[in-house]
Amino acid sequence: METAGVSRCAVRGMFFDFLDDPWKHAGKEHEAARFLRDGLLVVENGRISDFGLFEEVSPRHPGLEVVSLPGRLLLPGFIDGHVHFPQLRVMGAYGRHLLDWLQQRVFPEERKYGDRDYADKAAGLFFDALLAAGTTTCQAFTTSHPVATEAFFEEATRRNMRVITGLTGMDRFAPEASCVGSDDFYRESRRLIGRYHRKGRNLYAITPRFAVGCTDAMLDYSRRLKAEFPDCWVNTHISENPAEVRVARELFPDCQDYTAVYERYGLLGPKCTAGHGIWLSDDELRRFSKAGAAVAFCPLSNFFLGSGSFRLGRAMDPEHPVSVVLGSDIGGGNALTLLRVMEEAYKVGMCNATLLDGSLDPRAMDLAEAERNKFSPYRAYYLSTLGGARALCLDDLLGNFEPGKEADFVALDWRAGQAAMAWRQSLAVRDATGPRTVDEAAELLFGVMAMGDDRNVDETWIAGKRAYKKAATAA
Amino acid sequence: METAGVSRCAVRGMFFDFLDDPWKHAGKEHEAARFLRDGLLVVENGRISDFGLFEEVSPRHPGLEVVSLPGRLLLPGFIDGHVHFPQLRVMGAYGRHLLDWLQQRVFPEERKYGDRDYADKAAGLFFDALLAAGTTTCQAFTTSHPVATEAFFEEATRRNMRVITGLTGMDRFAPEASCVGSDDFYRESRRLIGRYHRKGRNLYAITPRFAVGCTDAMLDYSRRLKAEFPDCWVNTHISENPAEVRVARELFPDCQDYTAVYERYGLLGPKCTAGHGIWLSDDELRRFSKAGAAVAFCPLSNFFLGSGSFRLGRAMDPEHPVSVVLGSDIGGGNALTLLRVMEEAYKVGMCNATLLDGSLDPRAMDLAEAERNKFSPYRAYYLSTLGGARALCLDDLLGNFEPGKEADFVALDWRAGQAAMAWRQSLAVRDATGPRTVDEAAELLFGVMAMGDDRNVDETWIAGKRAYKKAATAA
Repeated sequence: METAGVSRCAVRGMFFDFLDDPWKHAGKEHEAARFLRDGLLVVENGRISDFGLFEEVSPRHPGLEVVSLPGRLLLPGFIDGHVHFPQLRVMGAYGRHLLDWLQQRVFPEERKYGDRDYADKAAGLFFDALLAAGTTTCQAFTTSHPVATEAFFEEATRRNMRVITGLTGMDRFAPEASCVGSDDFYRESRRLIGRYHRKGRNLYAITPRFAVGCTDAMLDYSRRLKAEFPDCWVNTHISENPAEVRVARELFPDCQDYTAVYERYGLLGPKCTAGHGIWLSDDELRRFSKAGAAVAFCPLSNFFLGSGSFRLGRAMDPEHPVSVVLGSDIGGGNALTLLRVMEEAYKVGMCNATLLDGSLDPRAMDLAEAERNKFSPYRAYYLSTLGGARALCLDDLLGNFEPGKEADFVALDWRAGQAAMAWRQSLAVRDATGPRTVDEAAELLFGVMAMGDDRNVDETWIAGKRAYKKAATAA
Repeated sequence: METAGVSRCAVRGMFFDFLDDPWKHAGKEHEAARFLRDGLLVVENGRISDFGLFEEVSPRHPGLEVVSLPGRLLLPGFIDGHVHFPQLRVMGAYGRHLLDWLQQRVFPEERKYGDRDYADKAAGLFFDALLAAGTTTCQAFTTSHPVATEAFFEEATRRNMRVITGLTGMDRFAPEASCVGSDDFYRESRRLIGRYHRKGRNLYAITPRFAVGCTDAMLDYSRRLKAEFPDCWVNTHISENPAEVRVARELFPDCQDYTAVYERYGLLGPKCTAGHGIWLSDDELRRFSKAGAAVAFCPLSNFFLGSGSFRLGRAMDPEHPVSVVLGSDIGGGNALTLLRVMEEAYKVGMCNATLLDGSLDPRAMDLAEAERNKFSPYRAYYLSTLGGARALCLDDLLGNFEPGKEADFVALDWRAGQAAMAWRQSLAVRDATGPRTVDEAAELLFGVMAMGDDRNVDETWIAGKRAYKKAATAA
């Protein structure tokens, strides 16, 4: 329906979202969630204008055409807080730990993104893959070539997607063709901020790649950029791999630890995200908490590269909580959908919990931290939606179905996927029409994250428009 | 072609299999593999009668009808060494470590298999799921109800699949309805051995579930059964979780360790497989090696239940090599296809290797063991085929395309799966018609295990007949 330039639509179905952080409701996590078995979402010009039970909302919008999506769970679109646009093609590359893998597999591929045609083609494939994965917003790394950042923003603009990215700054550790001089980084970042930041749904992140790849000059320019453009985001990496941590310490001998490098350059604060943080000390996690900076937890990548297990329960310490967002970390990660990221995060949490239950080492026992590692469906889907939005300081725009927010969402088919999925789910919820309670919905959603993959993403909607529909399987 | 009761067929395509153990060819692992870009497999009455290059084999079989499978890699069928038939429906069950998970999630489901109708229905779904996963042979646990074992063998017989299973013995630790008395276990095992072992392609495993669930009487009956039927297999669990190890030690105070329990009852030897073995000591691994017993490595389950990381590189110590077979361990595992098992095994190996590279703890450095943890595509697909067959003492029947063996195989589509798969694979192998060398084939196969899933299983053939074909996706 179009009235005087206003585009309106409404979607009816089963909605599941969050109003609070489930870690604050241990033992009764459903109190953080909202489940409407028969809900109606009204969208005006891409934003949610009304939301609630169908029977209550519907009478307020007579004559409005309604799209029904029965047999699906409708969730806010997934937010991927850490992904490398130019690594899509080197997903699942064999055999090396972080520093070697970058040199052997990643940098040769990233170099191709200096070619605008290649970057444009890749951007089309990347956004197609994001939508098929159920991801509606991402914070992405590009390469050290400005054209790669341009290609990314322009493809995102064509699709009207809320994204965060920026020119990736690296001026050492890689071959020259993969680097950018710090002066050029500063100048081009300023230009790109002016051209893209807050234009449409684009947001800019000042992006020094990581301390190992950045000289003092590069980090100092990053500091200047953040001071000049405080509304911009900051995106980087930290403490992914023990060897990387050691190299970072050697390169910055005056800094007491890895976090101190980013602190020195004024980068650690709200709107700053550092990927991984596996080997952060307790002291560093407390400083992240105090600064309001976020860690992107990328379990698929952390296992695939053998980097280690992020201490989720420690980060969620209520005394010093660290903001956490999930990341696929393509191409270190080996799947793009957050459903697979949630699966692996669950496994990390379970392994962490075993180490903390005292059965192996009584000194390591911490049952409260063990509990905080348990990646329930509430905690998992919270981090994938509202929690991720909060960590990225996007929760005024995204993360749940509150009116005023942007209408990005996914329709999950809880029966799709591997052969046994439908039978498994029929044990969780016997009513063929779907879950009746929030706990039943959460049980189905756990099945989707535990056994599922992108096949469970049936539709992805951007700003109130269907942007992806899964291909049907022939009978 | 049928001549005098002989059924013959031939399949033309790209074949990839193993003639040796790639761990014995470190640095030149391709020497253990065989790749025929244009091969011909000739099958007579379900067994391979001829195999080699098309141009060499074809003239020996004039007039034989040939099925061509272009654009696919044909591998021996996957062998799943550890899977629980009655846990298919509780795959991906939330939230508990081993001992609680068994009580809360598994035993209530397994109890249903005392009903033959339920077991029959489940067996149909289970074998459908196996075939869709590319698994042609499994060694499975059933329940403590003889009818569940009967349902399993009879469904396997209908599908003419090579399987190993047996009545699962457990007489403590579970509710009575999930248990079987040791006298009944002995009597029913004897009956089932007589009825099914070596009938068609069925093989019987004497199956005491695990030390925690078995009294001395149950284990003593298992010993007697193995003595009376030395041709039978033995299937059990060991050292999955630290709490379980502690309970086992308490229940068998006279045994120096968990392995000593099975040694005491004469069960540790060739044709014996114990699932998991994560917490086996070096001494226990050496005794496994000396006895010729196998460990089933089930990484999906080990992470899903938070049990820990199997020390693959230690098990592969050339001085004391332990036979290893991969297992999905449904429902502890959260996917049935060995492709996903291989992916997770790769991750376990990468994480193990980081702990062994000295970057975290110099005392833990062991670069040779770190290297043996690297789960290359050669090692991965070897363990899924010939290596698994060897560990289960089935290599006279299965595991590669040598004439005389049974003609079970899978046709893998290396481009199927998540959105970016085809583009990723095009980087590995630029020739659209497929790989030209064994290393190119291995690179594609690595992509399939790293990014793939059951979608990459395009067809599954049992004894020379197509038993599964993936549904096409509508354009």
